[in-house]
Amino acid sequence: MAGTDTTLSPFPKDIALAPVIILVSPQLGENIGMCARAMLNCAVTELRIVNPRDGWPNPGATSSAAGATAVLDQANLYTSTKDAVADLEFVLATTARPREMVKDIYSTDAAAKEIRQRNAGGIQKCGIMFGPERAGLENDDVVFANAILNIPLNPGFSSLNLAQAVLLVCFSWLSAENPFSAQEIATEMGDTAPAKKEDVEFLLAQLEDELTQGGFFRSPLQKPTILRNIRNFFFRSAPTQQDVRTLHGIVSCLTGKRRRGQG
Amino acid sequence: MAGTDTTLSPFPKDIALAPVIILVSPQLGENIGMCARAMLNCAVTELRIVNPRDGWPNPGATSSAAGATAVLDQANLYTSTKDAVADLEFVLATTARPREMVKDIYSTDAAAKEIRQRNAGGIQKCGIMFGPERAGLENDDVVFANAILNIPLNPGFSSLNLAQAVLLVCFSWLSAENPFSAQEIATEMGDTAPAKKEDVEFLLAQLEDELTQGGFFRSPLQKPTILRNIRNFFFRSAPTQQDVRTLHGIVSCLTGKRRRGQG
Repeated sequence: MAGTDTTLSPFPKDIALAPVIILVSPQLGENIGMCARAMLNCAVTELRIVNPRDGWPNPGATSSAAGATAVLDQANLYTSTKDAVADLEFVLATTARPREMVKDIYSTDAAAKEIRQRNAGGIQKCGIMFGPERAGLENDDVVFANAILNIPLNPGFSSLNLAQAVLLVCFSWLSAENPFSAQEIATEMGDTAPAKKEDVEFLLAQLEDELTQGGFFRSPLQKPTILRNIRNFFFRSAPTQQDVRTLHGIVSCLTGKRRRGQG
Repeated sequence: MAGTDTTLSPFPKDIALAPVIILVSPQLGENIGMCARAMLNCAVTELRIVNPRDGWPNPGATSSAAGATAVLDQANLYTSTKDAVADLEFVLATTARPREMVKDIYSTDAAAKEIRQRNAGGIQKCGIMFGPERAGLENDDVVFANAILNIPLNPGFSSLNLAQAVLLVCFSWLSAENPFSAQEIATEMGDTAPAKKEDVEFLLAQLEDELTQGGFFRSPLQKPTILRNIRNFFFRSAPTQQDVRTLHGIVSCLTGKRRRGQG
């Protein structure tokens, strides 16, 4: 079943290999399941588990995976970190704590680029290790890595849970690869400033008032939909402060004309 | 207390303003707390909450915030999305579903750049809206946004929980700003390939054998530490296949010499 699950290979074949995720001594099955979900969110599918505290398979993992069961079904179990990394050419150890050993430190962005470059040249299989929930990786595990991966966060508040760490690392890899993430948006402002939302809203309230008085909304049922479309038009166009003044002028002008016509 | 919490402003004053995070009709207090934690991880501190289902304040939020209580204490409560965005100049609505209205779609990277650019010119306050856990934002909320923010994930498995969505959006903003994330790593490989971990490990096992026989480890207590240092040295240097062959040759040569000397 898992082998034919199309969610596991959403990308063209020529896309680079995703890194292997290695969980060393994870404690709660629930966290393993949430890691599997985070991985599959980012099209990362190969999970290795070293000495899970509560054994394997773990029903708690399945229930928290939110459908990413194919990742769990295909996960491989190991009794040592050494065995879990044996067939890999390049391994990073995720840790926030400083270690007494000399190793390069990669940010998530730098790690994503490194893995992409290593994959580009051929088939270098890369892995990223994560330690148990509370203590993180031990030095005897870190030593198997080529370098350290540090997720650059608020230095005053950098503690993440396991699945969030996996999510950020996998998302950084995906973003470096993702054909869907490249879209750029450009806007020109000229020499005016954008209006505040409340100024636009005030304009819209006036307009609605006038339109209601003018009998614009023939069906009360359709009024909310029509108003939403109007509001969407005005917010989408990101009016400037000058635009808002101009639009007020237009509304006043048009209603003045109607009043004169009616009067 | 919260106002003097140093974790709220870890960066130099000249760094751009973080976006405001707006949770519209969130359901579980626990999720609000996890959002606050994810925000503070990324140095994003201003939270606005529109009509939380279970009221506010919510003890469940505090217990899941893992110490990010300053964000919760300073959060502002609103009874409408309109009021929550009133003082903002630029607002994005996070949604994965297609909508019937015409709006630009930003990726997380494009959104991070846009917010940085808008902040760079002066004080344009930006906000990012997130909908309730199951259904996401309603069209009547999306309409208040200038554009849509779409987190580019595996299209076959893109469902995130609320706090994870907040984390990815805030982390993308932080990464575009973060003075700590810029580190790049460069490596030169020449025309050889890196060795597999198991080949390095096999070499180390042989070396350990020979060192034990040669009486290298005088104190059994120190042996693990010395071995770890040796392993760290070899893995850190990322030996190539050629290096491993050479090192085998060196070990054989040296031990052969010792045996000849002893024989």
